[in-house]
Amino acid sequence: MTKLSAHPAAPAHGAVPDPLRLAASARSAGVWLPRTTEVHHWLATVGQHARAQVERVPLAELDGWLRDPATGNIAHRSGGFFTVEGLDVTIPRAPVPHWEQPIINQPEVGLLGIVVKEFDGVLHCLMQAKLEPGNCNGIQLSPTVQATRSNYTRVHRGRPVPYLEHFQDPARRSRILADVRQSEQGSWFHHKRNRNMVVEVEEDIDVHDGFCWLSLGQLHELLTVDNLINMDTRTVLSCLPFAHAGLAAVAAPGADPFRRALVASCAPDGYSRHSLGDLLSWITDVRTRTEVRTEMVPLDGLRSWRRTDERISHEDGGFFDVIGVRVRTRGREVAEWTQPMIEPHAKGVVAFLVRPIEGVLHVLVHARVEPGYVDIVELAPTVQCTPDSYERLPARARPLFLDEVLPARADRVRFDAELSEEGGRFYHARNRYLVAETDLAAGFDHPDFRWVTLAQLVELLRHSHYVNIQARSLVACLYGLATAPPRR
Amino acid sequence: MTKLSAHPAAPAHGAVPDPLRLAASARSAGVWLPRTTEVHHWLATVGQHARAQVERVPLAELDGWLRDPATGNIAHRSGGFFTVEGLDVTIPRAPVPHWEQPIINQPEVGLLGIVVKEFDGVLHCLMQAKLEPGNCNGIQLSPTVQATRSNYTRVHRGRPVPYLEHFQDPARRSRILADVRQSEQGSWFHHKRNRNMVVEVEEDIDVHDGFCWLSLGQLHELLTVDNLINMDTRTVLSCLPFAHAGLAAVAAPGADPFRRALVASCAPDGYSRHSLGDLLSWITDVRTRTEVRTEMVPLDGLRSWRRTDERISHEDGGFFDVIGVRVRTRGREVAEWTQPMIEPHAKGVVAFLVRPIEGVLHVLVHARVEPGYVDIVELAPTVQCTPDSYERLPARARPLFLDEVLPARADRVRFDAELSEEGGRFYHARNRYLVAETDLAAGFDHPDFRWVTLAQLVELLRHSHYVNIQARSLVACLYGLATAPPRR
Repeated sequence: MTKLSAHPAAPAHGAVPDPLRLAASARSAGVWLPRTTEVHHWLATVGQHARAQVERVPLAELDGWLRDPATGNIAHRSGGFFTVEGLDVTIPRAPVPHWEQPIINQPEVGLLGIVVKEFDGVLHCLMQAKLEPGNCNGIQLSPTVQATRSNYTRVHRGRPVPYLEHFQDPARRSRILADVRQSEQGSWFHHKRNRNMVVEVEEDIDVHDGFCWLSLGQLHELLTVDNLINMDTRTVLSCLPFAHAGLAAVAAPGADPFRRALVASCAPDGYSRHSLGDLLSWITDVRTRTEVRTEMVPLDGLRSWRRTDERISHEDGGFFDVIGVRVRTRGREVAEWTQPMIEPHAKGVVAFLVRPIEGVLHVLVHARVEPGYVDIVELAPTVQCTPDSYERLPARARPLFLDEVLPARADRVRFDAELSEEGGRFYHARNRYLVAETDLAAGFDHPDFRWVTLAQLVELLRHSHYVNIQARSLVACLYGLATAPPRR
Repeated sequence: MTKLSAHPAAPAHGAVPDPLRLAASARSAGVWLPRTTEVHHWLATVGQHARAQVERVPLAELDGWLRDPATGNIAHRSGGFFTVEGLDVTIPRAPVPHWEQPIINQPEVGLLGIVVKEFDGVLHCLMQAKLEPGNCNGIQLSPTVQATRSNYTRVHRGRPVPYLEHFQDPARRSRILADVRQSEQGSWFHHKRNRNMVVEVEEDIDVHDGFCWLSLGQLHELLTVDNLINMDTRTVLSCLPFAHAGLAAVAAPGADPFRRALVASCAPDGYSRHSLGDLLSWITDVRTRTEVRTEMVPLDGLRSWRRTDERISHEDGGFFDVIGVRVRTRGREVAEWTQPMIEPHAKGVVAFLVRPIEGVLHVLVHARVEPGYVDIVELAPTVQCTPDSYERLPARARPLFLDEVLPARADRVRFDAELSEEGGRFYHARNRYLVAETDLAAGFDHPDFRWVTLAQLVELLRHSHYVNIQARSLVACLYGLATAPPRR
């Protein structure tokens, strides 16, 4: 049993605390494009005006990207954006204790920001239909602002980033609903972090082409559509303070015991299998006992990777390739560019196993090591892997629970959609995201796993580096399940 | 106005939450050596049995420490302990935007642990009278266990560390009161962190020579004695969950408005000038906008530093030296050894300016950059500096508020003692620690300073890297002021 903090719930408008205002938005069909078909129609229309032609080009033919003669590292001529370098990883007690890999080095902190505003008393998010070269389907829904530091310091000499001023100038923000730096893929990025912000404004705002106000209810519904809500939107949504004891009254509990347990899981004062203090102590323990040594090394020195003019690939043909693409767009800051990208070889699986304990839904989190994390381990989904990769690795490396998740019965799967990872760096990187009920015992005891409530994850998400990017996507999906209105 | 979390307050023994049990211990004179004179007598007795002879030796004559021929870096032959290397620091918008310095590199996470146990219903801490070569006075009071990773993996082949098993074996801990990794001096250490733990046990425990059970009240009283409670004890004490709305009933409020405001500052549900959410957003903002570039460089390549066989010194004669010492002891793990140490040139000043706002005491924290921090800035005391150093730096580098703290009137100074920094690495490093009342406006507005309550600091101290080591010392002192019984 534990008590968590109430979130800073001082209401801006009357007496309604933020979590309840967010839940009300999650119950709303939205006032701008209230029918789902209208949103899809709008997206299709934007898509006709903002087309991209993305073609693969050999790494050796990237314009503006230089191959360092000494190391083979790939960097942009401006010094901006990111570099592709080599990483040597040693994790002495892991099933695979040593490997080398290419990694994207982008140490600057970018900004992922959503502007929210009340219409008819309901919070709406200003979303952008954004084309990214790595998207398998062209356009996906992104936050209001998605800017690298290079973007907003204009290293690439493009146009200014619209709406950025709402995140830079405190006088223009009426209030901040979320503001926290969070990590991204620690397998592909070295120490990458973005600032996740949600800012509420009261002033009138011009809606530029390609932007649209959507309620949280609409975003949550669109999360169930394959490859539509982009990764950056999902992480920002996960940082919203959804935990509140009053959520049961606002969310639609329905008759479904799963939904009741899920809403109960959002109550900070409710039951939890472990106290927050015990969870923090467990995280401290894992981070202290896990030894990870990483060293940036020359990209050309990776012994298991083969580099051609075309691409960089693992000698076994597994994991991912570093490829080059040329992009020609309309409706984006720059009309044409080339860049390196990471192209995974297969789809991944990202899943939370969940079960009620004492009537409160708990999710099974995994304290996971990724070499690019700033702080050794973060809490990850129960399963997060690319099943194909394990055909090349020793059997003891096969993830726990993968064989429970893959054949889960339809009636136990509460969420199931294919979602894309960041389309600015990853080429057609897609994962199947699942939330599945399990019969695993409440007393399941493993040094790297713990049962936690949604309210505990919400509390941890106020701080950096506790919950990884894949788990944050699933948290956003769980908010959607907790607050969804009856199906339209 | 804000609400903070209640700490995990599930009581182990009956219905009393931990913060109130801690406050009761802080009100107790202790059952083992209940008079202060007895403690001093015990310390003097231990001191007679555990003497050290510490003599300076030239760096070139250190046994077992090697000077890398290529870099000049100093490392132990075993590969353990720590190294002394060079650091190149660039902080573009700081008053001093670039410098180089020697720095101690000790990336392993050590353990600072206090065992606590109830006697006559009152929590007591098992403290060690510990000799460290850098202590100006030989013995100071340290936590039960103070172990580097080298210590407890026995790199130095010494004796096993007593009581370590209580922090390693979960079955032997009855409960964990604190468990969090915290940083140490970011000006002298590169990415140094220690795990701060407080573990309550129920079993009987043998008290070895040089150990003693003391109540928190005794420790708090001894904090007011110059150079007696060592740095490691202070940081562990600061991580105890002292915030609780019920503290007003347990602590002695007295008639003093300062004491009443201080106790009110420990209430998580009380008034605060900024919500915790706003403070977290401010920290996110400072960490995002502050650019710090550090690079480990060869110790022999530092242009402003001069190396002789004897020592390494700054060319201006300021800041600190790297020196060598030879230690001969009785009553310690190893009887004789040599090591490099950092010797600061002058005493420092570490001060919180405090004032009540709406009847609740607030302390003015400074978001401070130090090059060795893991995450750019941490919350530091209002003033933290070595005044002598500023004679060598441009006037614009002079710390804000230093000229308010130094001449503070005695009746406004609530705490004033000289305390030592870590005696295992720093030679005679002493700071004057102060808590002083100020008339500075509650509306004081500066991008790098904020008024915070003690309850907010307690909440932040559950997590790593928010509150720096000097501020943690002052937090321990403030706990003492908040809960002190009438003077004996």
